[in-house]
Amino acid sequence: MGLMTAAQYRASLNDGRVIYWGGETITDVTAHPRFAVPLAVASRDYAYDDPLLAPIITYETAPGEHAHRVYQVPRTIAELEQRLDLGRHMSIVGGVTGVYMALLTIKDQLAQVNPRFAANIETMYRYARDHDLRAAEVITDAKGDRAKKAHEQIDPDLYLRIVERRADGIVVRGAKLHITAAALVHELVVMPTKSMRAEETDYAVAFSIPVATRGVRIINRSFAPATLNDFDYPASARHSMPEGFVVFDDVFVPWERVFLAGEWQLAGAFAAALGLWERTLGLVIALHEAEVMTGLAQLVSEHQGKERDPHVMDAIAELMCYTETIRMGLDYAVRHYETTASGMLHPNTLGINVTKYYYASHFHQMVKHLQDVAGGLTITLPEEADLRHPEAGAYLRKYLAARPGVAIEQRMRVFTLIRDMTADAYGGWNLVTALQAGGGLKAQRIMMARTFDMERARHAALTAAGVTRGH
Amino acid sequence: MGLMTAAQYRASLNDGRVIYWGGETITDVTAHPRFAVPLAVASRDYAYDDPLLAPIITYETAPGEHAHRVYQVPRTIAELEQRLDLGRHMSIVGGVTGVYMALLTIKDQLAQVNPRFAANIETMYRYARDHDLRAAEVITDAKGDRAKKAHEQIDPDLYLRIVERRADGIVVRGAKLHITAAALVHELVVMPTKSMRAEETDYAVAFSIPVATRGVRIINRSFAPATLNDFDYPASARHSMPEGFVVFDDVFVPWERVFLAGEWQLAGAFAAALGLWERTLGLVIALHEAEVMTGLAQLVSEHQGKERDPHVMDAIAELMCYTETIRMGLDYAVRHYETTASGMLHPNTLGINVTKYYYASHFHQMVKHLQDVAGGLTITLPEEADLRHPEAGAYLRKYLAARPGVAIEQRMRVFTLIRDMTADAYGGWNLVTALQAGGGLKAQRIMMARTFDMERARHAALTAAGVTRGH
Amino acid sequence: MGLMTAAQYRASLNDGRVIYWGGETITDVTAHPRFAVPLAVASRDYAYDDPLLAPIITYETAPGEHAHRVYQVPRTIAELEQRLDLGRHMSIVGGVTGVYMALLTIKDQLAQVNPRFAANIETMYRYARDHDLRAAEVITDAKGDRAKKAHEQIDPDLYLRIVERRADGIVVRGAKLHITAAALVHELVVMPTKSMRAEETDYAVAFSIPVATRGVRIINRSFAPATLNDFDYPASARHSMPEGFVVFDDVFVPWERVFLAGEWQLAGAFAAALGLWERTLGLVIALHEAEVMTGLAQLVSEHQGKERDPHVMDAIAELMCYTETIRMGLDYAVRHYETTASGMLHPNTLGINVTKYYYASHFHQMVKHLQDVAGGLTITLPEEADLRHPEAGAYLRKYLAARPGVAIEQRMRVFTLIRDMTADAYGGWNLVTALQAGGGLKAQRIMMARTFDMERARHAALTAAGVTRGH
Amino acid sequence: MGLMTAAQYRASLNDGRVIYWGGETITDVTAHPRFAVPLAVASRDYAYDDPLLAPIITYETAPGEHAHRVYQVPRTIAELEQRLDLGRHMSIVGGVTGVYMALLTIKDQLAQVNPRFAANIETMYRYARDHDLRAAEVITDAKGDRAKKAHEQIDPDLYLRIVERRADGIVVRGAKLHITAAALVHELVVMPTKSMRAEETDYAVAFSIPVATRGVRIINRSFAPATLNDFDYPASARHSMPEGFVVFDDVFVPWERVFLAGEWQLAGAFAAALGLWERTLGLVIALHEAEVMTGLAQLVSEHQGKERDPHVMDAIAELMCYTETIRMGLDYAVRHYETTASGMLHPNTLGINVTKYYYASHFHQMVKHLQDVAGGLTITLPEEADLRHPEAGAYLRKYLAARPGVAIEQRMRVFTLIRDMTADAYGGWNLVTALQAGGGLKAQRIMMARTFDMERARHAALTAAGVTRGH
Repeated sequence: MGLMTAAQYRASLNDGRVIYWGGETITDVTAHPRFAVPLAVASRDYAYDDPLLAPIITYETAPGEHAHRVYQVPRTIAELEQRLDLGRHMSIVGGVTGVYMALLTIKDQLAQVNPRFAANIETMYRYARDHDLRAAEVITDAKGDRAKKAHEQIDPDLYLRIVERRADGIVVRGAKLHITAAALVHELVVMPTKSMRAEETDYAVAFSIPVATRGVRIINRSFAPATLNDFDYPASARHSMPEGFVVFDDVFVPWERVFLAGEWQLAGAFAAALGLWERTLGLVIALHEAEVMTGLAQLVSEHQGKERDPHVMDAIAELMCYTETIRMGLDYAVRHYETTASGMLHPNTLGINVTKYYYASHFHQMVKHLQDVAGGLTITLPEEADLRHPEAGAYLRKYLAARPGVAIEQRMRVFTLIRDMTADAYGGWNLVTALQAGGGLKAQRIMMARTFDMERARHAALTAAGVTRGH
Repeated sequence: MGLMTAAQYRASLNDGRVIYWGGETITDVTAHPRFAVPLAVASRDYAYDDPLLAPIITYETAPGEHAHRVYQVPRTIAELEQRLDLGRHMSIVGGVTGVYMALLTIKDQLAQVNPRFAANIETMYRYARDHDLRAAEVITDAKGDRAKKAHEQIDPDLYLRIVERRADGIVVRGAKLHITAAALVHELVVMPTKSMRAEETDYAVAFSIPVATRGVRIINRSFAPATLNDFDYPASARHSMPEGFVVFDDVFVPWERVFLAGEWQLAGAFAAALGLWERTLGLVIALHEAEVMTGLAQLVSEHQGKERDPHVMDAIAELMCYTETIRMGLDYAVRHYETTASGMLHPNTLGINVTKYYYASHFHQMVKHLQDVAGGLTITLPEEADLRHPEAGAYLRKYLAARPGVAIEQRMRVFTLIRDMTADAYGGWNLVTALQAGGGLKAQRIMMARTFDMERARHAALTAAGVTRGH
Repeated sequence: MGLMTAAQYRASLNDGRVIYWGGETITDVTAHPRFAVPLAVASRDYAYDDPLLAPIITYETAPGEHAHRVYQVPRTIAELEQRLDLGRHMSIVGGVTGVYMALLTIKDQLAQVNPRFAANIETMYRYARDHDLRAAEVITDAKGDRAKKAHEQIDPDLYLRIVERRADGIVVRGAKLHITAAALVHELVVMPTKSMRAEETDYAVAFSIPVATRGVRIINRSFAPATLNDFDYPASARHSMPEGFVVFDDVFVPWERVFLAGEWQLAGAFAAALGLWERTLGLVIALHEAEVMTGLAQLVSEHQGKERDPHVMDAIAELMCYTETIRMGLDYAVRHYETTASGMLHPNTLGINVTKYYYASHFHQMVKHLQDVAGGLTITLPEEADLRHPEAGAYLRKYLAARPGVAIEQRMRVFTLIRDMTADAYGGWNLVTALQAGGGLKAQRIMMARTFDMERARHAALTAAGVTRGH
Repeated sequence: MGLMTAAQYRASLNDGRVIYWGGETITDVTAHPRFAVPLAVASRDYAYDDPLLAPIITYETAPGEHAHRVYQVPRTIAELEQRLDLGRHMSIVGGVTGVYMALLTIKDQLAQVNPRFAANIETMYRYARDHDLRAAEVITDAKGDRAKKAHEQIDPDLYLRIVERRADGIVVRGAKLHITAAALVHELVVMPTKSMRAEETDYAVAFSIPVATRGVRIINRSFAPATLNDFDYPASARHSMPEGFVVFDDVFVPWERVFLAGEWQLAGAFAAALGLWERTLGLVIALHEAEVMTGLAQLVSEHQGKERDPHVMDAIAELMCYTETIRMGLDYAVRHYETTASGMLHPNTLGINVTKYYYASHFHQMVKHLQDVAGGLTITLPEEADLRHPEAGAYLRKYLAARPGVAIEQRMRVFTLIRDMTADAYGGWNLVTALQAGGGLKAQRIMMARTFDMERARHAALTAAGVTRGH
């Protein structure tokens, strides 16, 4: 019990989990080359021996006891700020492990309906924290025909459901999609993907189980090439992480790991609680990416002597506005935090939702601005291997010279990062994720509308219109 | 000395000032019907006997002494917040009187170059405060050919300049444009419109003089109809205020009222200091208008049973996002305030500039959303007079019925306000002002670029690109 | 019978029609100052003695017989082009008289259901043409609660309906909104505002009646000031036309003037047929306005020496793209015309709908571009009367000088037209009309979807995806 | 002489050309796996034995003599239409071979300055046509510091230049970037990248040489993975083509292959002539891609039962508008063609430039619409290999079921194509190419401005403003 080393983490994953990728059945993720980069990415979160990183990524749970800070329940604004700052210093595997915050957010509400399940949450949270585990957010169902409810689908399993209730637990069947890092975590924390109605009782189910549980199968997919180097793929090399298509083929879940089993009125609360934290973390990363994109636009322009071109300055100004607007939204959400019944702080819901929508709905435009100033070399620049080739490399060094003093490699790395972030497979993943994480633009608009203070706006409008009582 | 009553304010304006409007020479603005509504608007700022308003619009300058709060120099975040809140509770005449904050902002800097002028600022500020005066921001020159500098124009007077330096003062000549409320204030606070170069020395001039000073002439213009009622023009009735084309026909300014007279290096600082406060106030009002527009979109839709139409919901969600993004930007700018050498607080410069740019560059789109959901009645609804007509009114009451329970007058007032705010003369003024106040989109982008932390962005980009020293 | 003179047209309007405006009951529209400018606008369409205009606005109906070309049924592409060209050479009163094209478009279809009504269309068309009448398009009902159908409203009259069927005709009751020029035409051509269902039979009604028919009342509204001059209002002076709120208070319509009376299946066809011609004419005018806006942006920039400013050039380029895209869309719609069963040509439906949507959804953005380059004088420029004032005028002439050689009046007129077209009451009317004419953005999207060749797109997508039969 | 077979084409490429890719020196492009897919793509243009394709891709040059239609000089509107249609039926290698049209476009102009060079163009055109060669458009120089001219760079070779003039020809040095298909064509047709000034005489150079000429080196780059299958990469499999970084290391060009050698006044004309044809072909492909994207949006929505969701319908309507606007622009450009002095037809310059700008400036927005409706499976869908895996495949078939009757493979292929076209490496290439092909948004705006009829717009504006002579 306690913090693991990176080596212990790696070893812990060789536990018999059933993994498919690219037509192969992979028996040991720690040994397969396809997982090499993602494992390196995930392992960084266990670098507790890094003296600069340690104070950021750990906290004290009891005198002398430490855990990864992703497990810290924020109870002061300082702790909330530390949690957001943490988002910049951990991988997406650490990020999704934040799923426990969502569980704790709804624990109070759940306790009123099913105290045992609420206690299970508390127990599982402590277990995961104290064993330094990583968990995946397992939410999105296969969904089938969207015009139909869960129980109306041609196959009742298109939403994950309870197929058997036994004395010692439940048996579930279904599939969950877009499960980031599923193959590289310890626990799968499963929740309903939407609110449920009375007739969908069997679909109101939430629980946590180890990845290696019998009946669990993970089919993987990644934007990242099977192999990559960090010169040609500087962003992918830090973010490569497979998404899992996770199948539950009659999986048994003991009662002590169940958080919801038929209480359909609470189904929607899980997804809502998760969404807020997911969007918050997404914005922390979005702010960083926006700032990087702004810096890249400036650098690529300076390198080729175009930073005073008014058209370039306009595009960069748009990127500045984008960056700062996200920064201000996050700052607002933290300073106007909200508090749950049990004293946990979370960012302002409307602030997060508005900023997320602003970020998502303008992202493609910002990519356009960056690509517009960067130019064609973004996609035609030769690779590092050619730079290292004696003849090709000499030509590249001669002809990629631009403004005096700009190192050729720096110029190449700037173009390469622009390509990797916006115009290659990871770039495509970024575009889709900006829109879809947190539920697509439509869902995001609905989220805003739920917490916007329309009564105040309506009152302001009526007052301005000169309407008083009796009109 | 001390606070004036509204009646005293009105009386104080009949001082011999030279005013033109619509081909007439107007000798007493307090008696001319063209000024009736604007005067009513401006007079509200003197309603110190309103017990709800008084604590908001006044503050104590010395034991038992009160002044209008627009004169209060914010020294704590609470005072800064009060100042922003004040923006919602005073007319634009009060708003422009905030010009003294700009003067005080640059006073320290000015003192190093010309202590006498710095002292003049302090003196004039106290004088205006203690006499409860109103002042106009007199900035924009005629400018002539924008491709040429001040001294290169075909007429050297196209930028206001010093034409004579005398022992007792200076004589100035020129014209200033877009001077809101010039005909209804006491003091004209004149500043350079841009930074100046050494060869433009005579154009580096700032001072304050009474409106009735010999040689000052004001040609007026207003978006508002000559007469209006507040049913058909609910917004215009609160905002009607003439803009002045102010001519300085060899006007003498005594030295004690001069703030700049040739110190060209400081010319740009005046406009910059004013811009920040002007944009801040603009955003306070913009936030209110955005909230009103959101409420109007909701009301007009509810009235006609369309508030669940997904297309309508989408448009309203965009208005929500707009409103809250402005709110968050203002909140950020206040909480991350900056402090001058002499301890005066002002909102975060980058925060204000970014939020202003966001507001300005998206405003036309928001007008489109509101007009899209409101529909054609926005422009074809009959007037109040027809509603009061026995026959026409009966027809209107019958045929404007919509969802049960919605009062006809309320429905009409909502449409009328949408028209007045977005699709009539005041609406046009709003569109242009959103873009041009604070200098047009291009100037706003430049303002952002000046204070954006590009070094941080550049560093973030280089780090992400894997560039370290030596590359 | 035959063409009227302008004087005859004016005289013909003093026929006892019941008109309300601004709380007045107006007994003779030809004598009331409120109608002076609109009447002048409408009268221009009768200037058959203008030798340049005559060939454009007339055609030969039989040897030696002429009619206004708005009555010409296009049967060749040349005639279709003439019709579009006509749109630039007649007032909006002429424009709405094109309602007969819509009636003729559905005549064939109607003949299969009710030959008598089809014959009525033909008869009324010839009558109006041969008497050189003007007609209004009377479509939009009061509508009440949009979430309910016509017969479900709290007042059954909220959609115009047949309240009595008699041997000699029908009696109708209801109100129609946004009826351009209703007070200044001869005939009101009434149609259903939407498709109707079986239970809405009484609402499926179309007919034509003279404005002075007993029971017809028109409440007027206009964007234009009660009086205006064409220096300060150059666009309004050409486009000022009241919109009518037209009430049918148990109006009797003889059978020979009825086009639809219960055939609910055809109700939607009327509005659809009208929409195409209305949008076509709208685009002809939109193209002209876009070209004018582009020219204004160029002129206002040249006048003040800013036409080489890259920011200005960008904005003007956007206006160019807008202008030419509309031009190309109209050209396409004419060249790819469609033909009705009886041989009448009309523009390509999809082409018109797409171009209309493009125009409508980008218009606010184009206004923004123009206002951005024009600057603040757009709204603060003094009026013509001040220019004519001896003292004020001298100052204006001195200080509005800009680039050498630019006449002051030309500079003022350019600003004034920008204001009138985009930032004053007519500008607001333009903004709302761009969106709402032809049914709002949502309706326009639906219109596009109806005629888009999705089968071709689906096939292209499947082929590109490698899907062949059996997959 | 005459048409080649695909086999002959392949064989012709093994000619000793010097190629680098990924750190390797490749001695035979026809044998290296990296070129396998691109070669297959290029070879399709030689499928003259396809009876459906042959009439589209060939034409008769003399009785019984045929050539690829890319060589046909359009002299009638029908031939111009055939040329555009051809764009859909050849690879990008065929497309860039259209460079000869650009040469022929400027031949007349060139003949007046240097008849010999004009004759060289004619000779080279016939030679390439009659040997069924493929040629690359070799335009963009390395450019170095954009703020400096060609001769001011730190290395004079940063723009390709003549380093020696000999009796038998010239020697050139420099590098050209973004050269599509350089490694798989026969001829490199080299032109200046911009207009040149008198002091840049040595940079005004154009010529054509075989790829295997001594001193030519090509460093390759591609968006496409080294290996790919057409299930997972349906678009890449058809479009995979390397871009070349082409170095000219003191390459000798005999005079008979020179088209320009110092006539700096004509340098800009080459790029301009090429640009028009390049943008035309780009629009032909863009129209097809827009139609495919629209079909994909519809299909992916139908498959999951969302095609009646108003939000989805809105997004699809935007895609429809985009598709049809490009279609109408291309149609206009063909119908309003222009003719060169020697009788060659080309599309309307303004029409092409406007449509290109519309396409480029809205493309990212359209990608957003498609990705918004498609959802997360776009990036997380497992690969074909997993579908073929007995266990994983069975799970995929079960859980990807959606609306009854939709084949799983079809659903997967639709998602896969959306990913490949918009959210993977080819998608990124598409985004950048949409913006940059034809010179970036700024260059495109300048191109529009050059041919827009501003005199007409200025006149329309002045007339509308009431300006007549003398004002």
